[in-house]
Amino acid sequence: MTRQQLFDKIKQKESFLCVGLDTDIDKIPKHLLKAEDPIFEFNKQIIDATLPYAVAYKPNLAFYEALGSKGLASLEKTMEYLPDEVFTIADAKRGDIGNTSNMYAKAFFENMNFDAVTVAPYMGMDSVTPYLEYPRKWAVLLAATSNEGSFDFQELMMDGTGEKLYERVIAKSAEWSNPNNMMYVVGATRAETLIGIRRMIPEHFLLIPGVGAQGGSLEKVCAYGMNKQCGLLVNSSRGIIYAGDGEDFAEKAGKAAQNVQVTMAAQLLRHLH
Amino acid sequence: MTRQQLFDKIKQKESFLCVGLDTDIDKIPKHLLKAEDPIFEFNKQIIDATLPYAVAYKPNLAFYEALGSKGLASLEKTMEYLPDEVFTIADAKRGDIGNTSNMYAKAFFENMNFDAVTVAPYMGMDSVTPYLEYPRKWAVLLAATSNEGSFDFQELMMDGTGEKLYERVIAKSAEWSNPNNMMYVVGATRAETLIGIRRMIPEHFLLIPGVGAQGGSLEKVCAYGMNKQCGLLVNSSRGIIYAGDGEDFAEKAGKAAQNVQVTMAAQLLRHLH
Repeated sequence: MTRQQLFDKIKQKESFLCVGLDTDIDKIPKHLLKAEDPIFEFNKQIIDATLPYAVAYKPNLAFYEALGSKGLASLEKTMEYLPDEVFTIADAKRGDIGNTSNMYAKAFFENMNFDAVTVAPYMGMDSVTPYLEYPRKWAVLLAATSNEGSFDFQELMMDGTGEKLYERVIAKSAEWSNPNNMMYVVGATRAETLIGIRRMIPEHFLLIPGVGAQGGSLEKVCAYGMNKQCGLLVNSSRGIIYAGDGEDFAEKAGKAAQNVQVTMAAQLLRHLH
Repeated sequence: MTRQQLFDKIKQKESFLCVGLDTDIDKIPKHLLKAEDPIFEFNKQIIDATLPYAVAYKPNLAFYEALGSKGLASLEKTMEYLPDEVFTIADAKRGDIGNTSNMYAKAFFENMNFDAVTVAPYMGMDSVTPYLEYPRKWAVLLAATSNEGSFDFQELMMDGTGEKLYERVIAKSAEWSNPNNMMYVVGATRAETLIGIRRMIPEHFLLIPGVGAQGGSLEKVCAYGMNKQCGLLVNSSRGIIYAGDGEDFAEKAGKAAQNVQVTMAAQLLRHLH
């Protein structure tokens, strides 16, 4: 999917919501456990209920790999079920030497037809560029993440430059890529960092986790991060997919997604017009 | 496997060789493509031929994930086939928030029974500690990797401390862990960095890629990196598993592994006695 196509979809749905499919067999409603493939059945119903309100879906690979080859088969079915109109992100946080990154790119872009994959920057350029060579596909690079441990290394000041590590990651990687093949992960829990980040990369899309369960503010994220093409995909996982735990779990997930969408529509109206 | 058990195995086999199972369907001998599961068949024959000379095996997840759920099934079969006496490393380079790292730990330690998993440091403490909570299991943290891109961020100097980023990663993570549950990745292509690293962490095991195809020197690695319990696992992937490409590929892989083992036995004799 191209940047323009993504923006068109955001305007059409008045939403920049990404639903995180962190589907945990221990957390899904008990009545689904009788289904042939409970994980896929859960995802299918969540997708049906949230599709009017979401532009993107982000399965987290860990939750599928935790179930082995069977879990990966559930993910493959989920990817086949998702309509072409949505932007799909493999939340895999991969990062390896070029040779290996090529294999991951093949796994996610060719075999499973994801639009994007999250990538870790620690191993540098050759670990990232293989993902950038696929037309209409995206690397989503970890910059400033939403977790507590993000302060251990990402906020370290670099010698002499006045830059923090995550700023160096953004500046350096922006040399290898462009706003049509790269996005960055910036946690909503660190919304203020968006001010500086937007000075560095005004045009790029940002994937924002940490709204909801992790405590970030959607209003702040929009105030500091939104650009002329929206430029934001805000992810919510647990707050939506586990909004209910009974037979009506999908209906409740739909309602939770709609609530977020209504707030997003107001923010789009405010910042884009 | 404990550190002492690993060292005992190293002494018994006079080897600290780790065979990287980067099994690529496009590179295995053509006659295997007729097998029901060519990837597993290749791995099985490689394991049989190299087992006398290797103490560890390291499948790289990317190569299995590139084949989807079928590839993961081949990996599961490979893990069942590997005898308990060898140390097994999931080369996955995972790094995610605590909640998600728990799922990866479950995938690799509980479901697939790996002894160790490689982990990326960028997201900090809560992305690493879930792997440290399993007794006799190991996190293998990326420190100074063997690829060209490793210079993009790992070698950056930190403000005021005189430390490089990879040194900060080692120093900081050594606070959360100990030599019985943590190893570090240090590329053989940067053997000189081992001098400084051994000053910081004299006791830890190091996983050393980059000997062979990537050009690192085994002698230098041993001179700068070996400690009283050996403290090294040196990985070779392509140099061993693709030593031959005909019907005798396994025999050639065995020979290649034996050649490395002979050199390793000499190094052990020189540094441990």
